Amino acid sequence: MKESRHTASAGRTRIENMLSARESASVRKRLKDAFASQMQLAPHTERHLSGALQDTLQRPGSMVRAEIAYRLGLSSGLDDRRSEWLAISIEYFHTASLLFDDLPSMDNATHRRGNRCVHQIFGEGTAILAALALINRAYALLWKMTVGLSPEVQARSLAYVECHLGVSGVLNGQSRDLHYSAAEPSLRVPQQVAMQKTVSLIRLAFVLPAMAAGAPIREIHSLDRLAVSWGLSYQTLDDLKDILHTTGQGGKTTARDAHLDRPNLALSVGVAESLNYLRRLMNIGDKIVLRLGGERKSFDFLTTIREQLDREIASLAGAKTAVNL
Amino acid sequence: MKESRHTASAGRTRIENMLSARESASVRKRLKDAFASQMQLAPHTERHLSGALQDTLQRPGSMVRAEIAYRLGLSSGLDDRRSEWLAISIEYFHTASLLFDDLPSMDNATHRRGNRCVHQIFGEGTAILAALALINRAYALLWKMTVGLSPEVQARSLAYVECHLGVSGVLNGQSRDLHYSAAEPSLRVPQQVAMQKTVSLIRLAFVLPAMAAGAPIREIHSLDRLAVSWGLSYQTLDDLKDILHTTGQGGKTTARDAHLDRPNLALSVGVAESLNYLRRLMNIGDKIVLRLGGERKSFDFLTTIREQLDREIASLAGAKTAVNL
Repeated sequence: MKESRHTASAGRTRIENMLSARESASVRKRLKDAFASQMQLAPHTERHLSGALQDTLQRPGSMVRAEIAYRLGLSSGLDDRRSEWLAISIEYFHTASLLFDDLPSMDNATHRRGNRCVHQIFGEGTAILAALALINRAYALLWKMTVGLSPEVQARSLAYVECHLGVSGVLNGQSRDLHYSAAEPSLRVPQQVAMQKTVSLIRLAFVLPAMAAGAPIREIHSLDRLAVSWGLSYQTLDDLKDILHTTGQGGKTTARDAHLDRPNLALSVGVAESLNYLRRLMNIGDKIVLRLGGERKSFDFLTTIREQLDREIASLAGAKTAVNL
Repeated sequence: MKESRHTASAGRTRIENMLSARESASVRKRLKDAFASQMQLAPHTERHLSGALQDTLQRPGSMVRAEIAYRLGLSSGLDDRRSEWLAISIEYFHTASLLFDDLPSMDNATHRRGNRCVHQIFGEGTAILAALALINRAYALLWKMTVGLSPEVQARSLAYVECHLGVSGVLNGQSRDLHYSAAEPSLRVPQQVAMQKTVSLIRLAFVLPAMAAGAPIREIHSLDRLAVSWGLSYQTLDDLKDILHTTGQGGKTTARDAHLDRPNLALSVGVAESLNYLRRLMNIGDKIVLRLGGERKSFDFLTTIREQLDREIASLAGAKTAVNL
């Protein structure tokens, strides 16, 4: 993938890349603190529920969605508070979706973010309530983020949120995932499921900041397309990791897809074909990043996100099977 | 309870009462239709998820929360569309909470609204996704209801929603319910749990319409107090029914509280003392209804709601144990 990395980083010196990576780390540090502090637990909170939430809030994920939403918010002219609310809201939705996914009635996972799953420690009922608490707070933060914006922007933002989080988005994707049967190996079905289950939330991270800030439609459209190509790349990577990594490496339960008969691109079309697909997606993304970067300097941070994806792809080479990247 | 019924209906002729009951039935009919139609399912919806949702949407509950929210909305000057969105939103939250409550990891119920529970027909994973779909739509409807209102009203409404639906409200109540141990029989703990678990949503039905319409603080405060006294009455009735009714009568699984060691007022302090408590709560409610009715003619419908509660109380007399009402 060297060629496309070169294209995406074009015009940046090594020092600029380093500074950019450092900035990214500092933004994520700040957002990890906000992830823990944006959800206040009153002293009277029932102890199992509060335990499950504290455990979850102290164990943030990569915060890549939050970083994207936060920095796109600032780039588009959204104020700092609103950008943070939006970023944390998306991370709470994402984290809640993981708590649900890991339940015995869904993926029956045992490990997540390097630790035992919440339902394994605190019980299923409590894991469900903790996930609902994150969802409630996430909606409140999103709603709060739009208070004071124009009615048109509010209506457009809430319609986008509803569409991607609801029964036409994440929830339908999860239901198709749950009831999938790998009858016919194809790219199409796993891709459709990924579009709803995984890409939906990534689209919120890319589109909502610009939409809330009233960015031009053309820019919103480009960001949406970037979200789709990177979102599908991300899911393809995840599918490859599920096959190639061990549980210790990934920090979560792996090799589940074959066992549970879940859609997995690499299982459907093979590792080589999945890598080809990944390469095509990354190339599409690179073109959009280049164009956006040309329009606005503050979009430059997308190149750093791009490099992180690249490193994840490269890490597959160290996995069980030797992979030609 | 004849005395207080007389007080609450004071000044109304028998014909007025009949017309009022007929109006109530017609409002509920309309809201039941909206309950089914406000959640659109796209043709591509995964068939288990769509089955679970269709099953749920075709089986509305009493719609008492929706009727209260809708008519209080209109009384306070909220337009018809907004009043309906608010009403249906509250019913969706309520229905989602029942889907979760019935799960094996919570109350492990088998029947609800006269039918087998959703998780029994469609599986736990699908029941969870259907409940989340209702929650997503409910937030979207609430959010939509506030678009175009003043930023102050929006901020106040969303803070009220977050507080009562989140980790300080319903979710904490449900968690205390789940981890309750009837170590010490008292009124206090079951009452605290009921305040969070049951009364929270009833408060939304009473307070949000007035809040969204920008009603005077004093009126919002009275409606909040009425919600608390009727909400606690309702939970006390439910606790009594759990002990006195059979599953066939209630349309849902009963006699669960003792079995599951869940807070139940009637189990804690006995049937007679619970009925005394109910009488005190209804008396407080009656005073508020009288005062509100004196201020605004359109609040009269509250008397009809009051009479329905009375009929529910009277129906306990027909239950297993003869109860002196």
